[in-house]
Amino acid sequence: MNVLLSELESRLSEIREGLSAEGLTHLLVSKKGNICYLTGMETGVAVVGLDEAVLWLKDLYIEHHSSLYLDDNYPLDVRVYDMGNVFDYLKGKKQRLGVENVSVNSYRELADKLGYNPPTTEIVESKRMIKSRYEVEMLKTSASIAMKGMDKAFEVVRRGLSEAEAAAEVESELRHNGSECPPFRQGILLASGSSTADIHANPSQEKIKDNSMVIVDLGAKYNNYFSDMTRTITVGSLGREEKEISEFIHNLEMETIDRLEIGMPVKDIHDFVEREIIKKGYQFYHSTGHGVGLEVHEKPSVSSDSSDIVREGMVFTIEPGIYIPRKFGVRFEDMVYVGKKNIEVLTR
Amino acid sequence: MNVLLSELESRLSEIREGLSAEGLTHLLVSKKGNICYLTGMETGVAVVGLDEAVLWLKDLYIEHHSSLYLDDNYPLDVRVYDMGNVFDYLKGKKQRLGVENVSVNSYRELADKLGYNPPTTEIVESKRMIKSRYEVEMLKTSASIAMKGMDKAFEVVRRGLSEAEAAAEVESELRHNGSECPPFRQGILLASGSSTADIHANPSQEKIKDNSMVIVDLGAKYNNYFSDMTRTITVGSLGREEKEISEFIHNLEMETIDRLEIGMPVKDIHDFVEREIIKKGYQFYHSTGHGVGLEVHEKPSVSSDSSDIVREGMVFTIEPGIYIPRKFGVRFEDMVYVGKKNIEVLTR
Repeated sequence: MNVLLSELESRLSEIREGLSAEGLTHLLVSKKGNICYLTGMETGVAVVGLDEAVLWLKDLYIEHHSSLYLDDNYPLDVRVYDMGNVFDYLKGKKQRLGVENVSVNSYRELADKLGYNPPTTEIVESKRMIKSRYEVEMLKTSASIAMKGMDKAFEVVRRGLSEAEAAAEVESELRHNGSECPPFRQGILLASGSSTADIHANPSQEKIKDNSMVIVDLGAKYNNYFSDMTRTITVGSLGREEKEISEFIHNLEMETIDRLEIGMPVKDIHDFVEREIIKKGYQFYHSTGHGVGLEVHEKPSVSSDSSDIVREGMVFTIEPGIYIPRKFGVRFEDMVYVGKKNIEVLTR
Repeated sequence: MNVLLSELESRLSEIREGLSAEGLTHLLVSKKGNICYLTGMETGVAVVGLDEAVLWLKDLYIEHHSSLYLDDNYPLDVRVYDMGNVFDYLKGKKQRLGVENVSVNSYRELADKLGYNPPTTEIVESKRMIKSRYEVEMLKTSASIAMKGMDKAFEVVRRGLSEAEAAAEVESELRHNGSECPPFRQGILLASGSSTADIHANPSQEKIKDNSMVIVDLGAKYNNYFSDMTRTITVGSLGREEKEISEFIHNLEMETIDRLEIGMPVKDIHDFVEREIIKKGYQFYHSTGHGVGLEVHEKPSVSSDSSDIVREGMVFTIEPGIYIPRKFGVRFEDMVYVGKKNIEVLTR
């Protein structure tokens, strides 16, 4: 566990404020990102109550990591995991319990055991939107590792190399610079030629061609914090349409970042980007961005569905793109941190 | 899409048999592995009915991949995705609908729209347990790539190299040999020294020490099919206890594979392994194995909870291990294919 105990304490107390505000007394936490946020562990099940907090872990973890729990200040009571024990604990209390958006079968099992249907909440995800100073430091380090990987991409992407070979070089560079895992579930995205129009293309055995574009979307993980950035790299020289769209998207990304300010609806960021892309005569196929932290994608979603407001402490991506099916695509993406006085770009 | 249309047709017809057997007329499919199995796509939402099958995809995908759908034989009707459209389609039919184990919030939204609570089923996961000849070929290729990565691990793991550096070399080798992504969400597991006792350790900046063991757990992805294998590598020479446990687990793994036969309860495999480890004086902290296919972990679970029977066409792992907290751990893992006449080890 690499998180400061003072961080855990302040997070628990914020969750308790959230519980009170929603009229709840306890929260059952089992999602990996939320467990990591509240306990510093990457596994286990926790219940955070207004007056106490319990973490259930498998016995092997407790023994192996026991040095951690010898610290008298660890703010959760650690017990040996057994789902039956967790249910017994919950049943034994007259309480108003909040649960996360778990699978319907898990929820039914819980509701059966409890004898009532507990409400689902997003208290932890909502609190996680606002990063502490400690978290911003972790995210900055993660972003600096990602930038080293991107430097490597600019170095190796060239005609004749396959997408997969280039991806291998970049992923290796990320590891060598301290990334705790390859970025994302699928590894980095590195697409060339007409594959750039496929938003979720995986690196293939296709060779990179001259006079074309390559989209590289990558990140790192440092002390459990992710980073995420995208560049569209030019190989050789571009045709008129490719060049124009590439410049347009790059400028749009920078203009969008310039317009960010505390207090504006997150939705307005997306609406601006979408309007500009439509004005240019194209469609915008995905949302403008997403929060980044203990997960690559977390709240806020920078989309037209968002009801969030831009607040100090938020870290999210801005990633406009244009994709012309079977021809080419362009995307630029940076991670921004909303500071008290200014918007800081973490991936530049 | 790289799957044969004849494969898709036979899978759809098997799912229809499953629907009939459960008294259902339609199945809503949205889980990634299941979508991939039934449609060949890695995205989208599908409804498989007894007489028709529809796949909803975002417009960008339809345009970009349109060559695919120009094949008149593609067995699903492709439409532009919109959740409202999917609900309208479902509401418009008097039907008995099965759904997967989705999130409780998605389930509630669906139940609200439909006006009733559809049952959850595992028809697709159950069918996916039995691999076709085509799937076994894909899994063999995936396993052969994993073995090349493991050869690299035996080559690079040595005193003085950090776990992360060694992991970078192995992941790069997997990519160069055609793996479509780094294995697993976290990259490969490569743990040395006392970290071998941590079942989910990530490669760290720790240097590999002389006279110790290193656990390497890795896999590849080929044409969407995963592989998974583990070796415990000796660096220098071992102490008596380490050597004894290492030989014990290696022999136990081979003996377990020798005992496999069609018709035995999957549960018995796990119970045998657990009994032998307990007899030796240790605890067994995880299940003995899991199915491998379009997901790294899929049915059957080789655990005491399993109610499945070993059947021809199954592919699963056998991975006994002993972990002594804060000291060391040992695990060996292979992927086996249950053939008509013999058990084939795919990772040897």
